[in-house]
Amino acid sequence: MYRINTNYQKLPGSYLFSTIAKKVAAYTEANPDKTIIRLGIGDVTQPLTDPVIKALHKAVDEMADGATFRGYAPDLGYAFLRETIAENDFKARGCNIEADEIFVSDGAKCDSGNIQELFAADSRIAVCDPVYPVYVDSNVMAGRTGSYDPETGYWSDVIYMPCTEENGFVASLPNEMPDIIYLCFPNNPTGAAIKKAQLQEWVDYALKNGCVIIYDAAYEAYISEADVPHSIYECEGARECAIEIRSFSKNAGFTGLRLGYTVVPKDLTCGGASLRDMWARRHGTKYNGAPYIVQRAGEACYTEEGKASIRELVGYYMENAKTIHDGLKSLGYTVYGGVNSPYIWLKTPDGMSSWEFFDYLLDKAGVVGTPGSGFGPNGEGFFRLTAFGTHENSEAALKRIADL
Amino acid sequence: MYRINTNYQKLPGSYLFSTIAKKVAAYTEANPDKTIIRLGIGDVTQPLTDPVIKALHKAVDEMADGATFRGYAPDLGYAFLRETIAENDFKARGCNIEADEIFVSDGAKCDSGNIQELFAADSRIAVCDPVYPVYVDSNVMAGRTGSYDPETGYWSDVIYMPCTEENGFVASLPNEMPDIIYLCFPNNPTGAAIKKAQLQEWVDYALKNGCVIIYDAAYEAYISEADVPHSIYECEGARECAIEIRSFSKNAGFTGLRLGYTVVPKDLTCGGASLRDMWARRHGTKYNGAPYIVQRAGEACYTEEGKASIRELVGYYMENAKTIHDGLKSLGYTVYGGVNSPYIWLKTPDGMSSWEFFDYLLDKAGVVGTPGSGFGPNGEGFFRLTAFGTHENSEAALKRIADL
Repeated sequence: MYRINTNYQKLPGSYLFSTIAKKVAAYTEANPDKTIIRLGIGDVTQPLTDPVIKALHKAVDEMADGATFRGYAPDLGYAFLRETIAENDFKARGCNIEADEIFVSDGAKCDSGNIQELFAADSRIAVCDPVYPVYVDSNVMAGRTGSYDPETGYWSDVIYMPCTEENGFVASLPNEMPDIIYLCFPNNPTGAAIKKAQLQEWVDYALKNGCVIIYDAAYEAYISEADVPHSIYECEGARECAIEIRSFSKNAGFTGLRLGYTVVPKDLTCGGASLRDMWARRHGTKYNGAPYIVQRAGEACYTEEGKASIRELVGYYMENAKTIHDGLKSLGYTVYGGVNSPYIWLKTPDGMSSWEFFDYLLDKAGVVGTPGSGFGPNGEGFFRLTAFGTHENSEAALKRIADL
Repeated sequence: MYRINTNYQKLPGSYLFSTIAKKVAAYTEANPDKTIIRLGIGDVTQPLTDPVIKALHKAVDEMADGATFRGYAPDLGYAFLRETIAENDFKARGCNIEADEIFVSDGAKCDSGNIQELFAADSRIAVCDPVYPVYVDSNVMAGRTGSYDPETGYWSDVIYMPCTEENGFVASLPNEMPDIIYLCFPNNPTGAAIKKAQLQEWVDYALKNGCVIIYDAAYEAYISEADVPHSIYECEGARECAIEIRSFSKNAGFTGLRLGYTVVPKDLTCGGASLRDMWARRHGTKYNGAPYIVQRAGEACYTEEGKASIRELVGYYMENAKTIHDGLKSLGYTVYGGVNSPYIWLKTPDGMSSWEFFDYLLDKAGVVGTPGSGFGPNGEGFFRLTAFGTHENSEAALKRIADL
């Protein structure tokens, strides 16, 4: 008689963005005449850039010809992409990362969710609060989080590191000792960035206490300030304690194309076991590579033309960030983020809860954002807006909010 | 102090196909003048068909235009693809499967490896022996398989169902009671097909004993005989006990494009929990959909033009299967498979072990196949050749074997 993984039943309600989608669908059905402006889910709106489109067409043509057709990709991804990544994202920034420490995948979400498989079932995880829900939820599914308290929104066995206005949304070192530390900077959802010296403290802490850091740098392309690290490997000792996850979704607009990568350095070993080799084994056993044509699209992001087009794309969204950030501020809202990040993190007005403000904004303005509490208890009283809309929508949303 | 998932350390050596790749690389380095014919890994060689290429180009163009650009895909996959699949792969065969029971993914390998997450950690699995290694290996990683005996090649806690010459490579019902039963028909590696009445026995057994069947039908397109079921849902009661996994790799040649799907019927429940809802939750939490352009390519496989092109592609490979099967037979080899399957399963000559025959064939003929023992202990003494080469290579390989 088979039985299920009962950890799934511990997950409260459905995934944050599914809940939002359902609420929006209900609103649309009830108000078929109203147009909705979506600044909720972190999905991009601008088309793929010319260099990417050209690379895709070229690769598709290769797949049409027996002489250039490609079947299964190498387990870690094509060397042409891994070598380009190593050169541009790491060596150019003084980070010593080799191509064979880079694992190409179909996205940062998948890697964020799967990486916990490498660790012992009774590992204790520490997460920033609020944070991207995948870290906790994937560990719930693996049975590491204990029981959920619906009153407080906390899991009994997770170590929460509050990110608050007081600490500028950069968590302090945890009071209890974790095994696995999830960090995401520039942060989703708060938009906060971490300075290099601050990140070095985390690396030092991990090295001293034998922790591993899962560093999600999906929003790296939005960093605009000088003393903010683009990679955790800018910090001394990170090769011995950190895994880094990257995405092509938010820089090159690949949310619908699916491409990301994870760095597992060879120096990351535990009792003699190489985590790089373990991740390679997982790739070999449970994964079959990102599509060839998409890997070629990824490669195109690193040509001079490709880099310029990404700068332009990121610049476009950062204009939205400024529009929303500065606009809300001038309306009297308390606003964070939007400088090194495409996310604007605002304090809900009049002591409204995050979901109250969500409903209010949807009902009165037809604007969809994301309730801060969906990212963790310390997100309560906050609300996330994204800069990934069009200029027109970002400005229209701001106008609707001004008219409330 | 973090610790690793020590189950990974139980895995003996590296993944079968990685080992083969290393041996071939060593041979190539030592014999730079020799050409190798690869009939080992089940990778296809023929280019993508015209309807697929057209669909890809069209979808790429859509991604270049803000008005038609697509970001994140729906969690389960695009409705245009799921509805087409439900209609063509199921309803057209009298199987009652709805679009919202179909989960589009980046391939059958990923789904085969991930599906075990839905079940209790102490579930007992039963597998055919020999079989595609991913079923066992993914359960090793999850800690379900006990200890490995390098002498026999058996895991202490796995229930093996021998597929032998005596039973025509269709396993009998297991002696011990499993929770999860993995079946793969047409089978990889033996090429054996299962008759509908035989599969109905498995479904009846699962229903009677409360087992769940994971049915891998990746090679369904190669079925040529009338009484061989294309889907397990042709069997009565399968909606209550079976999950089916499908692939676009071997019918439409998508090994490098990555597309597959898994069917989890709504009738599949366990103690009130819906496995469909659990799999949906997993998709929502740890996965972000197959690329839009690839889902459009999948859709193109179901137009009349697309279906004709797939029939042609499958027909091409089945000619190879016949060439190899009949050729080896006329050379005096004992040969199986190749009728409802692209795999030819041959008995090694002169009592050679599978790996001995692998080395012999590589060294003397420059032909790469797959050792049967790599698929499980009962594969020992057998060898797999695939029909996925070109006509020229298949014939050349046969000639080289004839000249031995």
